[in-house]
Amino acid sequence: MSNAPVEVLSEEKSWKLLNGSVFGRLAMCIDGQPEIFPLNVFANDGTILFHTADGTKLRELLANDRAVFETDAFTSKHGWSIVAKGRARVLSDPAEIADAERSPLHTWVPTVKTTYVRIDVDEITGRRFAFGLDSREE
Amino acid sequence: MSNAPVEVLSEEKSWKLLNGSVFGRLAMCIDGQPEIFPLNVFANDGTILFHTADGTKLRELLANDRAVFETDAFTSKHGWSIVAKGRARVLSDPAEIADAERSPLHTWVPTVKTTYVRIDVDEITGRRFAFGLDSREE
Repeated sequence: MSNAPVEVLSEEKSWKLLNGSVFGRLAMCIDGQPEIFPLNVFANDGTILFHTADGTKLRELLANDRAVFETDAFTSKHGWSIVAKGRARVLSDPAEIADAERSPLHTWVPTVKTTYVRIDVDEITGRRFAFGLDSREE
Repeated sequence: MSNAPVEVLSEEKSWKLLNGSVFGRLAMCIDGQPEIFPLNVFANDGTILFHTADGTKLRELLANDRAVFETDAFTSKHGWSIVAKGRARVLSDPAEIADAERSPLHTWVPTVKTTYVRIDVDEITGRRFAFGLDSREE
């Protein structure tokens, strides 16, 4: 275990942490402007699944843009952050939707959400932090 | 207190929650591609202050792009998320840098960080969530 304050995680470790996450934030560029949305997810097998009630808007947003998903966890002493990039696509194929319906995707907010979106991840990076005070404060 | 699962917060409440935050995620569009970075911040008086060791890269990224900052907190029953938008700019004016040096910006990772960035927020939104199971799981 490295003592460096910031440790770059291997792809394997990054996937392990991503796959255990149920919540994170999605960032997209809409007409060149950044947008960020907190959401529940199910991550496995190289993809990140989520669903949303905001069907029309999200469908439009996802049509042409790459997406970035970030999830992290922190205590007072340590933390990690995973960033996964890929293309987000709305599921329309009945077999894919059926597969999504069987997933353990857990949505904390009990609204009716019918549009499934899957991000096919092609780039994942992870960092682990050991926290300390800023040098100005030592 | 509303019983709705998702409550839109007032601007006043959103600022109060943002101002208490010390950590969040910054999203930017770089050549039309989304990027997201976890970071420590100091939020007050309509702005979000942070600093970074990644001077050259970040300076380039910030030159022409709007930034979105998100911070959130969750328990098993409730959560909130604040999204603040604005233009990020690297501080170069000595008076502004001196002001930043006096701020209680707290950086968990003890690296030397000399570039201060300030986001002048012009749009803030907040949501509070009451968690429940997805309807499929009820």
